[in-house]
Parts: sequence; structure tokens; C-alpha cells
Amino acid sequence: MDGKTIGILGGGQLGRMIVEAAHRLNIKTIILDAPNSPAKQINALDEHVDGSFSDAKSIMELARKCDILTVEIEHVDANALQEAKNKYGVEIYPLPETIKMIQDKYLQKEHLIEHGIEVTESIDVKENNVETLTEIGNKFQYPFMLKSRTLAYDGRGNYVVKSKDNLSEALEFLKDRPLYAEKWCKFTMELAVMVVRSIEGEVFAYPTVETVHKNNICHVVYAPARVNDTVAVKASILAKNAVKSFPGCGIFGVEMFLLSNGELLINEIAPRPHNSGHYTIDACVTSQFEAHVRAVVGLPMPKDFTKFSTTNTNAIMLNVLGDDTANKELEICRRALETPNASVYLYGKGTRPQRKMGHINIVSSSMTDCENRLAHILGDEEVVVKDLDSSSDKPLVGIIMGSDSDLPVMSVGANILKTFGVPFEVTIVSAHRTPHRMTEYAIEAAKRGVKCIIAGAGGAAHLPGMVAAMTPLPVIGVPVKGSTLDGVDSLHSIVQMPRGIPVATVAINNSTNAALLAVRILGAVDNKWLNKMSQYMNNMESEVLAKAEKLESVGYENYKA
Amino acid sequence: MDGKTIGILGGGQLGRMIVEAAHRLNIKTIILDAPNSPAKQINALDEHVDGSFSDAKSIMELARKCDILTVEIEHVDANALQEAKNKYGVEIYPLPETIKMIQDKYLQKEHLIEHGIEVTESIDVKENNVETLTEIGNKFQYPFMLKSRTLAYDGRGNYVVKSKDNLSEALEFLKDRPLYAEKWCKFTMELAVMVVRSIEGEVFAYPTVETVHKNNICHVVYAPARVNDTVAVKASILAKNAVKSFPGCGIFGVEMFLLSNGELLINEIAPRPHNSGHYTIDACVTSQFEAHVRAVVGLPMPKDFTKFSTTNTNAIMLNVLGDDTANKELEICRRALETPNASVYLYGKGTRPQRKMGHINIVSSSMTDCENRLAHILGDEEVVVKDLDSSSDKPLVGIIMGSDSDLPVMSVGANILKTFGVPFEVTIVSAHRTPHRMTEYAIEAAKRGVKCIIAGAGGAAHLPGMVAAMTPLPVIGVPVKGSTLDGVDSLHSIVQMPRGIPVATVAINNSTNAALLAVRILGAVDNKWLNKMSQYMNNMESEVLAKAEKLESVGYENYKA
Repeated sequence: MDGKTIGILGGGQLGRMIVEAAHRLNIKTIILDAPNSPAKQINALDEHVDGSFSDAKSIMELARKCDILTVEIEHVDANALQEAKNKYGVEIYPLPETIKMIQDKYLQKEHLIEHGIEVTESIDVKENNVETLTEIGNKFQYPFMLKSRTLAYDGRGNYVVKSKDNLSEALEFLKDRPLYAEKWCKFTMELAVMVVRSIEGEVFAYPTVETVHKNNICHVVYAPARVNDTVAVKASILAKNAVKSFPGCGIFGVEMFLLSNGELLINEIAPRPHNSGHYTIDACVTSQFEAHVRAVVGLPMPKDFTKFSTTNTNAIMLNVLGDDTANKELEICRRALETPNASVYLYGKGTRPQRKMGHINIVSSSMTDCENRLAHILGDEEVVVKDLDSSSDKPLVGIIMGSDSDLPVMSVGANILKTFGVPFEVTIVSAHRTPHRMTEYAIEAAKRGVKCIIAGAGGAAHLPGMVAAMTPLPVIGVPVKGSTLDGVDSLHSIVQMPRGIPVATVAINNSTNAALLAVRILGAVDNKWLNKMSQYMNNMESEVLAKAEKLESVGYENYKA
Repeated sequence: MDGKTIGILGGGQLGRMIVEAAHRLNIKTIILDAPNSPAKQINALDEHVDGSFSDAKSIMELARKCDILTVEIEHVDANALQEAKNKYGVEIYPLPETIKMIQDKYLQKEHLIEHGIEVTESIDVKENNVETLTEIGNKFQYPFMLKSRTLAYDGRGNYVVKSKDNLSEALEFLKDRPLYAEKWCKFTMELAVMVVRSIEGEVFAYPTVETVHKNNICHVVYAPARVNDTVAVKASILAKNAVKSFPGCGIFGVEMFLLSNGELLINEIAPRPHNSGHYTIDACVTSQFEAHVRAVVGLPMPKDFTKFSTTNTNAIMLNVLGDDTANKELEICRRALETPNASVYLYGKGTRPQRKMGHINIVSSSMTDCENRLAHILGDEEVVVKDLDSSSDKPLVGIIMGSDSDLPVMSVGANILKTFGVPFEVTIVSAHRTPHRMTEYAIEAAKRGVKCIIAGAGGAAHLPGMVAAMTPLPVIGVPVKGSTLDGVDSLHSIVQMPRGIPVATVAINNSTNAALLAVRILGAVDNKWLNKMSQYMNNMESEVLAKAEKLESVGYENYKA
């Protein structure tokens, strides 16, 4: 796509996935890392550099061969990068100064604070001794976090100081590393946002996601995060503002805490692709890896290119960690392969306990469905049988009626649904005689995948309104005509609902229209129902026009229907 | 994922994409093709075999190194494959005998006919001379197709015989190749279905797609095909039955013609990944390439694993062919990169006119949106500005009323939508005073992305029913109370619609419930609206419970609302 060659410091899984994205765009990549590292395995070149991304000489060798350097890890020799830039004029993204600053988590925090970004409260530990820590303990109270300023990730370099009796132990654990202390943050959820920045400084945020950690390592990511819109948008803005503060370009992973009062605090920022963004490979048109490649090479990044693929995309990412028994983690992968809607990514690494060996992406139209599939993959046998059946035959419309005497009226509507090929169910639920059954039906319907309920009732027709009061689904009411009052009693009982609880009421005894309305509602989900409805309406029109033609030709005196 | 090594005959783009899929599952692949072929570029191994997939010696060399052999092209030396199987016990999928039979398009047809599969009518050309062809011309009439039985693809090896004056020319063009003649097939559309077969003989069909060819080369693929369900299902069954007739396992591309009478005829079958299945990379969870890998290795293939990723996935694939001016085809790629929802795949091949250099996948929630994006990528400047804007602010609900006197009633509902954050529009459309405006509004609404219409009217309230008669969308009717008859006139005018055209009627003057019903309907599209509705209902409950508590504590005599 572009004649430039990208050099990548680090050939782990992140480098590997950057290479994969670059391949798809015919962009040449050269890797600096140990021989046969995951990224090198999928890139047939003689020019790769064997060495360490923290070794100045190897970095200079890589720089000589490339137009652009980037990193898959921030723990590189940033000074060597600066030197390579000066000596060879190679472009480097993220900027060496950004990498250097982010490497020191305390400097990172100070930088964010300077730019007005909310972060967790921290103090620099001037001297690694018990007196200094005691002072901090007095200020922050216990527990507080003691963290290494550098080379800390996946929980390594962090220590929870539970009381002042812990102080010496904490110092011993973190040895002579440069330290800072962080006030204990009682968050209700961890959120993350991938943000990609163009060289012009424009920023694009991927959806706000929810991360769940286990033993300080990312375990599961929910995309989108299961929070309300306000929180999601606030997180997105916070992440974008943070990334705006770093010149240069490329992708950044922004991790934050959501507090119980709705406040958001940034925990830390990674200047590279991030584990919390792996879901983008399947859930978004453009993955975080391609976004990074586009940014550093200067390829187009149009508005909205970081969105989900479709309006109802939901995804879960599960990390696959090396098991204590070598290769046992492949059992989870096998279960994922047995689960439709799941994709397995393995990184080509030798197995080792707790090592990130791969990840699994689950994508579906609903988060509940993703969660069921995750439960199955994680070994919950029950879930499969119950919920992982083909969704195509699950009822989309539920038809209920107060009494079997309503069936002659309601079955007409059921036949309409059958003609349209809409999966539906029919049963008797009486508001007055089976109130508990009604409650259960109303509460369970949405969970079972029903999109719309048709309820028919006569007389003091309470069923449609009562069901509507207990489900968020649209409820269509069919007033059934009884032996007295011509059905006006049912009509008014159904249509005159109080403000707050709507019932979509159709004409007396007209379950046909209830069914047709249900098809129109399904049209909002899937265009095919709208097309079928248009076809149905065209047919109706043709039928009436044919009758008109017949009437005109035979004359009104001779016309027989 | 599995210890087996797959050898691939052919290292072009199909081989490259098989390798990519295998990498993700940590499955080792070895390629037989020229040095630096597309598949080899992304696979760092010393063991690749440099040579031709039609050379027996090279095939034997590859076979020695692998557990399984497969092909990215059917024009391989099938006898050598059979020999390799006998000599080294290597598994070969597709089976050598299947490859051999499919290589000869006429034998392929005879095989399908034997298995009761509908194909285009053909005759073997016993001798390549004018007399034989004249007989065939008499039988088939002109034009008819003259085709090489072997080594024909992308239109090469085909000749359209327009009249008997063409016969010598046709023979000259196809020289001494083995030939067959095919009756001219006046199809209305070309369809294709990718089918993957497990070693146990179970078959899984990807969605039925529509292919559009240009100069005999695949130009664009629409997924799903723009046909009705019956045709799509019929095509899927036909394709599955065809693939069931071939023992062995792996993916097959089945191309067919749709005739104007609805009949489907198979044109030809490729025993490998196929250009018409490239959309699966972005539109399905499991791509055709991964499906092939799973099949030949024997990894799980669960029910439904070949479905679209989400219920409303629509996709278009555009082939990128080498331009007459070298690398000019990259301009189309660049436009694709500028278009959100499009992904570019380049194959690492040197540019050459009409060569398949890459492809572009467009994925979106609606086919119309995909088509707009395609038009933009193909160079239609106008489309961008008009339709590629963010869809997030497009109204999902249209509120219309017969007169501005209805506004006090209807604005209450509008405020409810505002609270829920639903994008909506409000305007006046009178059935009796602006009948043409009403028609236009009703007809255009669905196209503009509106999912539901709320119509308020009083007296002889015709607006909701008339709009419902001209749109397939759900229409919610709000009876507005006039100065006489207490609104019962409006209620009955709206609710008592004839069978065929439903209006979802709410209580008199209750636009609140109309808005809430609209939110419930949107819940069918996107779960977030259902969640918001549940939240709203919980709040209502809490409010009433608080009032109950107050009433109980202050007593009914002292209670003030």
C-alpha cells in the first residue's frame, strides 16, 4: 500500500498481530527480537534483527533498515531510539520522549495531571525506607498501593500495603526499584478505551470496554462495557483527552477505574496495542493493529473507522493463559472451536504457566448470548444444551390469550405469522386465573429472545396491560369481542392504559393486524421482514386492483366477490 | 492447536489466506510454489518447496514433509497426489480422485447429473471439427458456449459461438483442447455458496451470495444475495447436495445460475477456497479459510459456525484487479481506506493488468449502506457527502401530527424520547390538507432509516391509518381528544383499521405511551433501549413505592401529592 518499511521493537503477540495487519496492506515490517519470536514466525525475511529491544546496538541496526520504528512494548531503550532518530532520520512512533515518560509511571501521572486529566492520587517515594512509607501510610491510610515506577506490568512490581506492619516486607519485595505510592482506589469496575492518534493530532476512540482482571492479569473484556451511555461517553472523552496530550501518533490503551459515585480516574496508559483491544479484530471493521499501522504510516483514518462492524455487535474477549500442566490451556481453545461465534487466536509461544498463550473472541448480536457462549467455553456444560441451540427457531413473537375461548380469534393472527415465516409460540396465560404464570411469562419473555408479545383478551381485558407492566418489550393488545357490549369493553380496557405503560392496541377481534404489526416491529431488527411486509402490501394492492378491474368489466350489477 | 503439518499446493492469495488462518491456530503450513509467492511471504520457514504444483517431483518432496496435503488450485498433478498418498500415507483433501474429476468440467457435470444435481445442459465434443459443432449448433441453437474441459478459469478457455459462421474461429481459438458445448443459459443472476464438508460427510453452508462478473472475472459479491428467502434456501440446499456427492473433506465453492422462472442450475464447483467467499473474512466469525483448515485437520465444526457474525450483517466484496497503468489500482484501495466499514486486503503480488491484486470487504448493518460505500470507493464523489455521514444522529422515530393544534398533546411524547436519548424528528403532515406530503413522508420514512412512526390526529383521524397503508414500518396512533365526543371519535378512527393494515393505538391523548412504545420497539433492534426501558420501569416502581411509604407514614388524611 505504501513503500515505507516499519521496524518493530518486540516480536511478541502484539508485534505478531501488527505484522498480520501490515501484511494485509502489503506493508513491509522488520522485527527486532529473539529468533523465531511470534512475530518473526509469520514474516519470511532475512533482514530481521536478532537481539533485544533494550539493546542500543540492535536498535541502531534495525533503524538503518527502516523508514519508521514502532514498539509493541514500552520497556525499550528510549535513548537509543532518540539517537537513531538523530542519526538516520527514521520516524519513531510513539515518540521516544513519550515512551520515556510513560516508562516512568509516576512521570506519566504528573504529565496527565498537568494536562487536567483525572488520575488516581499518588505520591513519589523520595527514599525507600520505613520512615518515608510511614508518613505516606499516615496520609493515605491503609491499605495503599506501593508500585515500582518502572518495568511494572501484569501486577509485577506492585505491592498492596495492608497495614504499617507490612512496610518492611513491601520494601523487601520491591527491593531497590524507584517507587511511588498510590491511594487505595475502591472502584466498582475497570474500563478501558483504545485511542488512535493521527500525526495531525486527531484522535479516534474505539468503544468503551469493561476489563475483568484475575491475579492482576487481564482475564475477560466485555465490549461494549456494561455501563450506561453517560459513563461510556465520559470514559471515551477522558481517554481521548489523555491521548491528545501526547504528540506523535499511533494507538494507545487507556485503562481507568469507575468509582461508585460515577467518577472516572485514569489508572495507566500504554503507548501501543493493548490486550483490552483484542476484541477489535472481530468486532470492529478495523482492528487496533491496523489502526496503529495506518497511524504510523500516515494512511487514511476516516471519521468513525473505529466503530463496531454493525449496530448490534457485542463481543467478549477471553485471554488464554498457560496452564500449570503444559498445553492444558488448549482444552479451552478446543471448547471455543466447538462453540459457534467464537474465534481462537494462538500466538506461537511455548507453553508456561500464566503466560499469555492466545485469546478467544466471541461476537454476537447480544451480550447475553456472548455470556452464554463464554460460560460454555469456560466449562459450564449446562449452558450449551439450554441456550446454544440454533437461534433461528427460537420464537420471536409470543402469542398469549386469557382463555381458550379467545383461540378462534387469535389463531387467525398465528396463521399470518406462519405465512411470513416468523418463529412464534402460542399459549394461554390468564391475568385473573393464573396471575403468577402471567408474571413469570412477562418477566422471562425478553430473556428468551422474544421480541414482541401479542396478548388477546375480552371483557375486563387486563392481560395485555398487566404483561406490559412487567416487560420492557412491546406488547400488542387484541380486544376480543364478548357476548355483551360489542367488544368496546375490551377495547377500552386495553387501550386506555395510564401514562408510563403502553399497549399497542389494534381493532376489535383483529388479530390479523396484531400479527402484521409484530412483523413490522421485527422489521426494525432485520430488514428482511420489512421487505416481506412491502411484498405483502403490494399483493394486497394487486388483489384489490384486480377486483376493481373485474368490477369495472362485469359491471356492478353482475359483480360477485 | 494440533501437531499436524499441512502442505499447500499453490502459494497464491488463496494459499496466503489459508496460511493466515492456520497461523491463528498455531498450525504449521508448508508451501509448494515459486520462491517468494504470496503465501510464502507470510510464513518464515526453511522447509518450503520451490517448484510447481503440477510437477510430480516437487509434490513428492512436499508430501514427505507433511501429514496432510491440500490445494489452493485444482490444476495440480492429481496422479502425483495419488502416488504420494500411497507412498507416504499422507492424507489428501480434497481427495485426488475428486480433484481429477473436477479438473475435467465435463466429467464434473456428468458426476453431478448422476447424483441428481441440476446443471446447465451440455454435450461432449467428440471431435474438434466444424461438422461436430454444426450438429451441436443445430441442437442447442445459437448462441451456445464452447468450453475447454480442462484448465479453464476466469473466462479463459471459453468461447461464445454466436452463429454457425463462428465455428471455425471458435475451433481456432480453443485449438486442440478437449472441448464440450453448453446450451446458452439466460440467467437473471449468478449465485454462489461456499460449503465446507467434514470428513464424516457433514456439510455446512455459508450464506447464499450474489456474484457479479465483469469480463468473466468476479467483480463484486453481495452477501447475502439480494433474493427472497426461498431462492436463498433453495440455493443453499442445492450447493450442500452437490458437495455431499464428493467424499473427503474441505471447502468447496459452488457457483450457480438463477433463471427467470426461479430455477437454479449449477455452473461449476471449485474444490477449494473461492473468490466468492472472501467476504467471510469480515462478515462471518469463521472465514472460509479457517473452515477449510478446520475441515482438513479434523478440528471441531459446530452447527451454525458458518453464519454471519450478527443478525444484521450485510457485506459487499470488491475485487481489486491490476490496472493498465501499474499500481493505479492502489487508488481504489486508498479510497477504501478513506471509507469507514471497508477493509483492504492486498496479496503481495507484482502488478499486472487484470491480475487479482487484492480485495476490499465492506460490512455494515444494511445493504443500502454497503452499496453507498461501494459507490464511493468506485469513485462516485456525490455519495459520500450525502450518505456516509455518521448515522448516529439520524432520526429513528418520526413524530407527525395532523395539525399544530395537536402539538401540546404530541410534544409530551417528544420530550419522553428526548429523555431516553432517542434521535427523532417532529413535523406536521395532514392527511386531508397535505395528502401528497403524507404519501411522500410515508414512502420515504423507511429509506431514511426511521424505524417507527408516531402519528397523532383528532376527529376523523385518518393520518395514522393512511400512513400505515403506505409504509411497512410500525405506525403508532395517538387519538387526540377534540372539543366533542371526548376523543372516542379519534380512538375508533385510529384503532378500527381493516385487516391488513395495523395501527398500534394507544390511549386518548397519551403520547407518553406512544413514545414509550417506540422505545420498546427500538429495543428489538438494540438491547440498550430495552435496558433503558427496564430502568425507566424500575424508577416508576420506586416512585410509587415511595409514595406508598409516605401515605402509610403520614396517614391518608394528611397525605399531599
